Amino acid sequence: MNTEQTIAEIIALERAALDRWGAGDPDGYLEISAPDVSYFDPFLERRIDGREALSAWYAPLRGTIHIERYDLIEPQVQLYGDTAVLTFNLISYQGEGSIHWNCSEVYRCDSEGWCVVQTHWSITRHLQM
Amino acid sequence: MNTEQTIAEIIALERAALDRWGAGDPDGYLEISAPDVSYFDPFLERRIDGREALSAWYAPLRGTIHIERYDLIEPQVQLYGDTAVLTFNLISYQGEGSIHWNCSEVYRCDSEGWCVVQTHWSITRHLQM
Repeated sequence: MNTEQTIAEIIALERAALDRWGAGDPDGYLEISAPDVSYFDPFLERRIDGREALSAWYAPLRGTIHIERYDLIEPQVQLYGDTAVLTFNLISYQGEGSIHWNCSEVYRCDSEGWCVVQTHWSITRHLQM
Repeated sequence: MNTEQTIAEIIALERAALDRWGAGDPDGYLEISAPDVSYFDPFLERRIDGREALSAWYAPLRGTIHIERYDLIEPQVQLYGDTAVLTFNLISYQGEGSIHWNCSEVYRCDSEGWCVVQTHWSITRHLQM
């Protein structure tokens, strides 16, 4: 697979997980997360270590999230052999409101394909100087 | 170099850059950032792409930051060959105030040693469910 195909594959994996997330299904992300995934989001007091702990964190959200649509802004993949760093801004829309996100995802390719070893979600421009 | 030494080296690189940052010197981070580094922090409207753009973003901060001390909480390095994913929580103290941070850094090892290809800083528990 050439570089362009790999980049397209990784962005497609992310979009598929995001589509399921927006329909209330966190399993899309859990299925592409590695057992040793590390994870940050803006609701947590500390980093989450491991897919099992991430699954427990996501459990109460199942069926509660309904994103109507989203804009994935300038997704970029930095590809280094078996590692790919995907970064993007995201605007998610729900009712009249929208949330602006920063996201970084580190993907690794092993014998089973690409999976996520690091996820970091945060709010865009939370602070102003 | 064995795994433990590599992990210690990466954490030491981060601490050294952080120490200089807290003394008002952003060059510590710029010196360990790769030319293609991608970067998020909570003040930005969009991702920054590349060390040159990051240097411009940091320029007005030179000499203005004074962190008295910080706690680096549970730094973890996920090591995958030439790629290392460093994650930690950080509390930085200045006067009577403190700021709680999430941080993820992706390091790559090339012929010149380890450098950062992705940086993501965000505020811990910005949102509450």
